[in-house]
Amino acid sequence: MTEREDLYESPLNSRYCRGSPITEIFSERSKTEAWRQLWIWLAEAEFELGLKQICPEAIQEMRDNIKEINWPLVKSSERRLKHDVMAHNYCFGEICPKAKGIIHLGATSCYVQDNGDLINQRAALDHILVKMAVVLQRVAVFAEKNKEVITVGRTHYQTASLVTVGKRAAIWGQELLMAFEEIERFREEIRFRGIKGATGTQDSFMTLFNGDEDKVEQLDEIVTKKAGFKHKFFIAGQTYSRQQDLRLINCLATVGAVIKKISLDIRVLQALNELLEPFEENQIGSSAMPYKRNPMKNERCCSLARKLLSAPQEALGILADQGLERTLDDSANRRMLIPESFLLVEALLTTMQNIFEGLTVQKENVDKIVKDELPFLALERAMMMLTDHGGDRQVAHHVIREASLAAKEMQKTKIVSLKDIISDPFFDSIRDELLKMELEPIVFTGRCVSQVTRFLSTELYPKIQKYLTEKDIQGSVSLDV
Amino acid sequence: MTEREDLYESPLNSRYCRGSPITEIFSERSKTEAWRQLWIWLAEAEFELGLKQICPEAIQEMRDNIKEINWPLVKSSERRLKHDVMAHNYCFGEICPKAKGIIHLGATSCYVQDNGDLINQRAALDHILVKMAVVLQRVAVFAEKNKEVITVGRTHYQTASLVTVGKRAAIWGQELLMAFEEIERFREEIRFRGIKGATGTQDSFMTLFNGDEDKVEQLDEIVTKKAGFKHKFFIAGQTYSRQQDLRLINCLATVGAVIKKISLDIRVLQALNELLEPFEENQIGSSAMPYKRNPMKNERCCSLARKLLSAPQEALGILADQGLERTLDDSANRRMLIPESFLLVEALLTTMQNIFEGLTVQKENVDKIVKDELPFLALERAMMMLTDHGGDRQVAHHVIREASLAAKEMQKTKIVSLKDIISDPFFDSIRDELLKMELEPIVFTGRCVSQVTRFLSTELYPKIQKYLTEKDIQGSVSLDV
Amino acid sequence: MTEREDLYESPLNSRYCRGSPITEIFSERSKTEAWRQLWIWLAEAEFELGLKQICPEAIQEMRDNIKEINWPLVKSSERRLKHDVMAHNYCFGEICPKAKGIIHLGATSCYVQDNGDLINQRAALDHILVKMAVVLQRVAVFAEKNKEVITVGRTHYQTASLVTVGKRAAIWGQELLMAFEEIERFREEIRFRGIKGATGTQDSFMTLFNGDEDKVEQLDEIVTKKAGFKHKFFIAGQTYSRQQDLRLINCLATVGAVIKKISLDIRVLQALNELLEPFEENQIGSSAMPYKRNPMKNERCCSLARKLLSAPQEALGILADQGLERTLDDSANRRMLIPESFLLVEALLTTMQNIFEGLTVQKENVDKIVKDELPFLALERAMMMLTDHGGDRQVAHHVIREASLAAKEMQKTKIVSLKDIISDPFFDSIRDELLKMELEPIVFTGRCVSQVTRFLSTELYPKIQKYLTEKDIQGSVSLDV
Amino acid sequence: MTEREDLYESPLNSRYCRGSPITEIFSERSKTEAWRQLWIWLAEAEFELGLKQICPEAIQEMRDNIKEINWPLVKSSERRLKHDVMAHNYCFGEICPKAKGIIHLGATSCYVQDNGDLINQRAALDHILVKMAVVLQRVAVFAEKNKEVITVGRTHYQTASLVTVGKRAAIWGQELLMAFEEIERFREEIRFRGIKGATGTQDSFMTLFNGDEDKVEQLDEIVTKKAGFKHKFFIAGQTYSRQQDLRLINCLATVGAVIKKISLDIRVLQALNELLEPFEENQIGSSAMPYKRNPMKNERCCSLARKLLSAPQEALGILADQGLERTLDDSANRRMLIPESFLLVEALLTTMQNIFEGLTVQKENVDKIVKDELPFLALERAMMMLTDHGGDRQVAHHVIREASLAAKEMQKTKIVSLKDIISDPFFDSIRDELLKMELEPIVFTGRCVSQVTRFLSTELYPKIQKYLTEKDIQGSVSLDV
Repeated sequence: MTEREDLYESPLNSRYCRGSPITEIFSERSKTEAWRQLWIWLAEAEFELGLKQICPEAIQEMRDNIKEINWPLVKSSERRLKHDVMAHNYCFGEICPKAKGIIHLGATSCYVQDNGDLINQRAALDHILVKMAVVLQRVAVFAEKNKEVITVGRTHYQTASLVTVGKRAAIWGQELLMAFEEIERFREEIRFRGIKGATGTQDSFMTLFNGDEDKVEQLDEIVTKKAGFKHKFFIAGQTYSRQQDLRLINCLATVGAVIKKISLDIRVLQALNELLEPFEENQIGSSAMPYKRNPMKNERCCSLARKLLSAPQEALGILADQGLERTLDDSANRRMLIPESFLLVEALLTTMQNIFEGLTVQKENVDKIVKDELPFLALERAMMMLTDHGGDRQVAHHVIREASLAAKEMQKTKIVSLKDIISDPFFDSIRDELLKMELEPIVFTGRCVSQVTRFLSTELYPKIQKYLTEKDIQGSVSLDV
Repeated sequence: MTEREDLYESPLNSRYCRGSPITEIFSERSKTEAWRQLWIWLAEAEFELGLKQICPEAIQEMRDNIKEINWPLVKSSERRLKHDVMAHNYCFGEICPKAKGIIHLGATSCYVQDNGDLINQRAALDHILVKMAVVLQRVAVFAEKNKEVITVGRTHYQTASLVTVGKRAAIWGQELLMAFEEIERFREEIRFRGIKGATGTQDSFMTLFNGDEDKVEQLDEIVTKKAGFKHKFFIAGQTYSRQQDLRLINCLATVGAVIKKISLDIRVLQALNELLEPFEENQIGSSAMPYKRNPMKNERCCSLARKLLSAPQEALGILADQGLERTLDDSANRRMLIPESFLLVEALLTTMQNIFEGLTVQKENVDKIVKDELPFLALERAMMMLTDHGGDRQVAHHVIREASLAAKEMQKTKIVSLKDIISDPFFDSIRDELLKMELEPIVFTGRCVSQVTRFLSTELYPKIQKYLTEKDIQGSVSLDV
Repeated sequence: MTEREDLYESPLNSRYCRGSPITEIFSERSKTEAWRQLWIWLAEAEFELGLKQICPEAIQEMRDNIKEINWPLVKSSERRLKHDVMAHNYCFGEICPKAKGIIHLGATSCYVQDNGDLINQRAALDHILVKMAVVLQRVAVFAEKNKEVITVGRTHYQTASLVTVGKRAAIWGQELLMAFEEIERFREEIRFRGIKGATGTQDSFMTLFNGDEDKVEQLDEIVTKKAGFKHKFFIAGQTYSRQQDLRLINCLATVGAVIKKISLDIRVLQALNELLEPFEENQIGSSAMPYKRNPMKNERCCSLARKLLSAPQEALGILADQGLERTLDDSANRRMLIPESFLLVEALLTTMQNIFEGLTVQKENVDKIVKDELPFLALERAMMMLTDHGGDRQVAHHVIREASLAAKEMQKTKIVSLKDIISDPFFDSIRDELLKMELEPIVFTGRCVSQVTRFLSTELYPKIQKYLTEKDIQGSVSLDV
Repeated sequence: MTEREDLYESPLNSRYCRGSPITEIFSERSKTEAWRQLWIWLAEAEFELGLKQICPEAIQEMRDNIKEINWPLVKSSERRLKHDVMAHNYCFGEICPKAKGIIHLGATSCYVQDNGDLINQRAALDHILVKMAVVLQRVAVFAEKNKEVITVGRTHYQTASLVTVGKRAAIWGQELLMAFEEIERFREEIRFRGIKGATGTQDSFMTLFNGDEDKVEQLDEIVTKKAGFKHKFFIAGQTYSRQQDLRLINCLATVGAVIKKISLDIRVLQALNELLEPFEENQIGSSAMPYKRNPMKNERCCSLARKLLSAPQEALGILADQGLERTLDDSANRRMLIPESFLLVEALLTTMQNIFEGLTVQKENVDKIVKDELPFLALERAMMMLTDHGGDRQVAHHVIREASLAAKEMQKTKIVSLKDIISDPFFDSIRDELLKMELEPIVFTGRCVSQVTRFLSTELYPKIQKYLTEKDIQGSVSLDV
C-alpha cells in the first residue's frame, strides 16, 4: 500500500498546518457534505413553495444520509462521467433512492459548487478572525510591556531618532489590525451566489414554477437564508463574480505582506542583537555550527508569506479571463488557490503567535546601542532648540550635519560624547539644556508611550475583544516542526 | 535641442492619456505646489498654536510665491544635495527670504512627500470616480437598450441556455460597479499621514511646544483639516502605512481585471460576429489586409489591463519590504507605480467609454445563431418539464444527452429541428408544449429582462447618480490614436 | 483514523497527477534516500582520500540500510530538534550503529538538502523531457496530417489571409519546441552544489584534511562524479545559487505560457466550430444542459498554466531575498515551488497529449467559413497583383479597403461574391486572373505546406528523436478525471 | 507652452537614466529610422531578386531622406488612420514621391514593427553587455582587494563560520556573471522575424515572385543578412514568437533579482557597520536628522529591481494570451515593457558601478566583530578535530551546542573567551591546538583566498575581457540625483 511518505504531499498539510481546522474545512468530506446540505435546502425550499415533485420523505432520507459517503463509488463515477457534481449527484441518489429523482432539481453544477465553496470560505474566515485576534492580543501585550523600553529608531536600517520597543510593536499591531479589519469587512459583506440557473437567467426555475417570478425570487431568498448568508448576488452568470474571490485573496495576501514586514524587522533586529525569537529547548540551529540560534521561525514566515504574495496575481487572472457566462478555466486554480491561501495564513498566524509569546528583548544590548548613538540622536532636538532661539532651520541643519559626520569619523577609533560634538560656539545657547536631556533619554522619544497606550485602548482592543475568550488569552501555541 | 521624439517617452503620456488631467496631477509642478502648500499649512498651524518663531509676513510671502518655481535651480540643487525635499526647501527659501528660516520647521521629508502624495492621489480618485460613473452610465444604456435582444448564452465559450444581450451587459455593469464601490470606499476612508516627525514619535514637535502633548496633537489635527482629510493615521513610523497604498493599487488593478474580462468578451463576440466595436471613418485595420475591421480598441484594453495587473505584486513587495521605521526602497517604485496605475485606469476608462458609445449588436447574425441553436437549448427546459411530469431528473438528463449529441452529429450535414431531436416516445408528454415554446424564444430567457431592469434601477443608477452632470451624460469621447 | 478525504489534499496529487512518477520523485521517501546516498558517497570519498575516521564496515552498513526508514522516529525526532537534517542524521545513525559517528562528517545541512534536491530535479527533468518529446510528436503528427487543410487565418481573432490547419499547428509545435530546447539545455548545464561547508569556505574539510587544498578539491570532484553531474559550482555560500532555481522555474513556466496559448487557441476554434477536443464516451458536459460538449480539457490546461505562471515571481523573490551566505527564507518556498511546478507541467503535458491524440478538425464548418470569407481574402493578393501591374500600393490599399468594407455591409443580408466586390473598373487588369484563383484556394496559402514539411523534418523531429521509443510513439494516454 | 514639469514624466527618463543611450535607442526617432531602413532593405532585396516594380532611384530617394521626419504630419496621420505603420508609410511617401508606390511592398505591419523592435533590442543588448562587464570588473577589483579581509560569515543574518570580505564579493560576482552569460547567450541566439507576410504564409511574396519559393526564401535571407542577424525564425504567424520576448525579459529581470540581493546584503552590512556605500560631498541624508548617512543608493537599487521583478509576469501573459496568428493585445505592453526593462537595468548598473567604485569596508568594526565572535566560530573546527581524535560527530555536536549556548548567555554581561567555553574536560584533547589557532583567524577561513583568486582568473575575467576598453577600466561614473 502506498504510504503518505511515498508520494509528494504539500508541506502545508504535513508540516505547517498539521491538525488545523482549515485542513478539514477544505477536505473532500467537508465539500461533499456542503453539497448535500445545499441539495437538501433546495428541496426544502422547493417543497415550501409548493413544488409537487418534492415529498417530505425524500427530504428526510437526504437528511438521514448526509454523512454516508461511499468514496470508492464517488471516484469511479467521476472517472466515468468526468463531472464531479454529476458523480456526487449519482452517489447520493444511490443512498437515497426516494430522493434520487429530485436531487439537484432545477439547479446547475455551480449551485452546489459555488455556494458550497462560499460556505467553506465563511467557516475558514470565522476561524481566521479568531486566530488573528489572538495574535493581535499577543502583539498588544508585547507592545504594552515594552512601551517604555527605549531603543534607537531605524530609518534606512540606520540609527535614527529614539523610539521605544513598544511603539515599534504598535506599528506592527496597526498593520495587522488594518489587515484584520479588511477581513472582518469581507466576512460581513460576503455574498451568496444563491439560485440562478445555468446561465444566470433562472430559466429552469421559471419553468418549474410556471413563470411565477415571485416564487423564483423567494426560492433564492429562502435558500440564502437557510445557508445563513446576509447578502446575495442579484445578477450572475453561471457563477458568482470572481471579483469576490479576488477581494478575499487580496485580504489574505495582505496578511502575508504584513507578516513578511514584521518578520523581516525581527530578523534584522535579531542580527543587531536587539530581539531574540523563542528557541525551543532541544532545537538545533545548525548541523555544522552548533552555537547557532537562528531566527528560523521568522524566516519561515517570510517564506510562507512570499508564497502568499503571488496569490493575487492568480486571482486577478481568474477574474480577467472569465469568459462570458462562465468559462471553466478558473476551476483548477480555485481548487488550490483558495484553500492554500487560507492554509498559508493559518501557518503564518500560528507561527506569529508562537513568536510573540516568546519574543525577548535583548535589553543589555539595546541599552548599549542607545548609549552609543545618543549623542547623535540628540542633535535633531538641537536643531529644534536652535530655531526656538531664533536660528535659521537650514543653517542649523548644515552646521549639525558637518559636526555629526565629523564625529562619526572620530567614533571609529574612540568613544565620542555629545559634549565633543557640540563643542563649537554655535551651540552655546543650547548646550547646557541639551546635555541635561542626555541624562534622561526618554524625553527624546516624544509621544511614544502615550501613542502606544492610546492606540491599544482606543483602536486595537475594542476591535478584537468580541473574538476572544479567556482561554484564547491564557493559552499558548507550540509549533509542530 | 532635444525633442520629445529623441528620447523614450512613456506612451501613457504620448499616446494613451494625452490631455488627461491625471498627467497634470502627477506632474512635478503639481507635486511642488502640494509641498509648498503643506509648508504653508504647517506654518499657519504652528502660528495659530502660538509658536513664536513664525510670523504672518513669512506665511504671506509663501502664499504669494507658491507658484514661482525656478526649475533649473531645483534641479541643480537636487543634483548637489541628492535630496529632493531639501532641494525644494532651499529653492522655496530663495524666493521667500522672510520664510527661509522656518520652512519645514519641525518636519521630516515625509511630511511633504507622503502628505503631498495623498493630496494628489485624492485628486486623481475624484477624477476617476466621475469617469467611471460615466462609463457605468454608458454600459447601463447599452444594457437597457438591448435587454430584450435574445442571444445564446455561452459557457465554456460554447452555446448555452439563452440570455439577452442586455443581461450580459448587466453582468459587465455589475463587475464595474463592484470595482467602483471599492474605489469610492477607499476615497471615503483614505487617511492622511499628518504630522508625525522623523520616526513617528512627534519628538521634534514636543520640543517646539515644550512637551505640550495637547498642542502637538492639535497641530496634527489642524493640518489634517486644512488639507481636507477626514481621517488620519494615529500611529506611524516615518511614513504612513504602505498598506494603504496596497489597497489603492488593489482597487485600481481590479478595474483592470474587470475591463480585461469585458474586452475579452467583446473580442470573442466580435469573432463570432455578434458584436462590433466602433470603427472610425478613416481607420485602417491592417496594412496588408485592407478588408480588416479589428477590435483593436478592446485589444488595447486587454493590453493596458495586463500591465495594470502586475501592479499589486509591486505594492505587496513595497509593504512587505518596508523596514522598521522606514526604508527608502519604496521610493522609486512609488514614483512610478501610483501615477502609472492611475494613468492606466484613465486610458482604460476612456477607451471603454468610446467603445460603449459605439458598440453595435450584429443583430442579423445574433438572430441566426439563436435560430440554429434553439432546438438544443430547448432541451434544458425539456428536462424540467419531464420532472414536472414525474420523471426522474437523472434519467431525463441521460436521454436528452444522448439525443442531443446525436443531433449535433447530424447537424454537420443538414439542418436539425427540435422536432427531429425529440422524436423519441420518451418525449411524448411534453412534445407539444415544447414545440409551441420554440416559436417564442423569449420565454427561454427566464428573468433576463426583469433582472436588467431591476439591477439598473435599484443597484447601478442610485450609486452613480451623484457623480454625473447632464454634460457627462450627453457628451462623447474620441480617441487620440 | 484520518482518511485522505478528511483533510485538504492538493488536487495535483489527488486529481491531476495520480500515478505520475513526479509524485514519487518528490516524496519524503525519495528525499530521504537521496540524503542517505549522499552520506554514503561522502563517506566513500573521504575514505578514498585517506580519512582514517571512516571504515569500510560503516560504509557497507549504510549501503545495506539505505531503504530502512523508521518514519515515526523521523517525525518525533524532527519535532524535538526542529531540524530535519539532524533528525534524519540521528535516525540513520540509529539503524547504522557503526556509521553513527561519521555520518555527515564535515558537512553542513545543505550538503544533503541542496544536492539531494538537485538529484531529484534531474530525475524530474529526465522524465519531463521524454513526456514533452511525446507531446511534440503528437503535435507533429497532427500538423503533418492537416498540412493541406485550408482554413482562414485569424489575426485579432478576425478572419485574415488563408493558412492551413497544419501550419497553425506548426506554430504551436515551434513554441513547444523552443520551450523544450530550453529545458534540455538546463538539463545539460545543471550544476551540482558539491561539498562546500557551512559558509562555502570548505573550512571543515580543510581541517579534516589538514589544510591539503588538493584533497579538498578532489573530494568535491569525486562526490560530484559519483552523483553523476557534469558541472558543479566553484563559488558558493551555504547553498548553491538560487539563480539556478530561477532558471529552472522559468523553463517550466514557459511551458505553462505556451500551453495556455495553445489551449486558448483551441478553445476559441472550438467556439467557432473549427476544432473539437476529444470527448469521452460517458463524459457529461453540463449537469443542467445535457447537450453540451465543453472544451474542459483545454480549459483545465489554461487553469493549471495560470497557476504555473505565478511561479517565476516566487523564484525571483527567493533569489532577491537570499541574504549574505544564506538565509532560510527560501525553505518553505522551495519545498512547494519546485515539486509543484514539475507537477503542473506533468499535468499539462498529460492533458495536452490526450488532447492531440483525439483532436478533431470540424472539416465541414472549416470549409464553409473559407468559402464565405474567400472573396475578402483574395483582396490581399489583388493588392499585390495591382502593384505588379504598376499600381501604387497605397492607392490600391485605399480602394480595396473601401470596396471590402462596403461588401462586409452587404454581406449581412445576402451572400457576397468576389465578382461583386471587384466590379469596379479599377480592378479590370487583374479581374480574370483573380477569379480563376478563387477556384483553387490552396494558392492563397502561400508556403504553408512546405513550411510545415520543412519545419518538421529539419527542426522538430531531429530534436526529439533520441527521447522516443516505439512504445512512446504507439501509446496513448487517458485522463483520470 | 506645456513644459516637461507640467505633465507626468517617467522618472526613468527624468531621474534615473538621464543621458543614457538606452533612452535614445527606444525613442520615436530611433524606431522611425529603423522602420525606414527596413523599407529600404526590403526594396533593395526585391530589386536584387528582379522585381521590376522597384527602381534604383526610388531606393536612393529613400536612403537620402531616411532622417527627414515631419513629426506633426506623422501625428496627424496617425490620429486620422489609427494605424501607426500606415501613418509612417504615408509620411515617408510624402518625402519620397518616387518611392511612394513601392514602400512596404508585399509587407505587413509586423515586418517593420517586429524587425524594428529587434534591431533596437540588439542595440540595447550590446550597450548593456559592456556596461555589465564594467560592473563585473568593479566587483572583481573589490573582491581581489578584500580577499584576505576576514569577516564573520552570516547565515540567517546570524554570525557563522568566518569568510573574507572578498569571498563574499565573489559570490556577488558569480551571481552577476551568471546573469551576464544568459544575456550574452540571448544576444548570440536572438532571431530575426524576417519576411513572413500577414499571417506568416509569405503569400504576398509568392504572388510578387509568381510562386517562386526559392526567391521568397532568398528574400527572407537577404534582408536578414542586411539587418545583421545570424538567426531567423522559419515558422511564424504574423509576429515572431513572443517566447523570445519572454526570454529577453527573464534575462533582464534576473539582473534585477541579483542586484536586489547584492544591495540588500550591503544595506544589512551597513546596518551592522561593516560596509559603507559612497556618500557624496554635499549629500544630505535626512531633512530632520542631519547626522544620517543612509544607503540610499542601494535602497534605490532594491526599489528599481522590485519594479523589474514584475516584468516577467507581464511577458508570460503576453505569450500566453497571443491568439492564433496574432492578437494585438501585446502592443501596449511591448511599447512599455521592453524599453522600460532595459532602462531599469541601465539605472541599476549605473548605480551599482557607482557603489562599487566607492564601497568602503569599515575595517575597525569588522575586526571587532570577528574578535567578539571568534570563540564561537572556532567551535565548528573543534567538532572536526574531535572526530579526528575518534569522537562521535553527533556527541560532539551536542556538547558544543550546550557549551556555546551557555556562553552566549554569559556574553550578555561579560566578555567571553574561547578558553572559557572549552573549559570542560571533554575538550582536553584539542584545547591547545584550538587556542593556538585562535591567534591566527585566517586559518578559519578555509579556502576563501584561493577561491577568490581562482574564480576571478578562471571564470570572471576571461568572460568579460573582450567587452572592456582601457577607458572603461579607468573611468568612473557619477549619479545625477
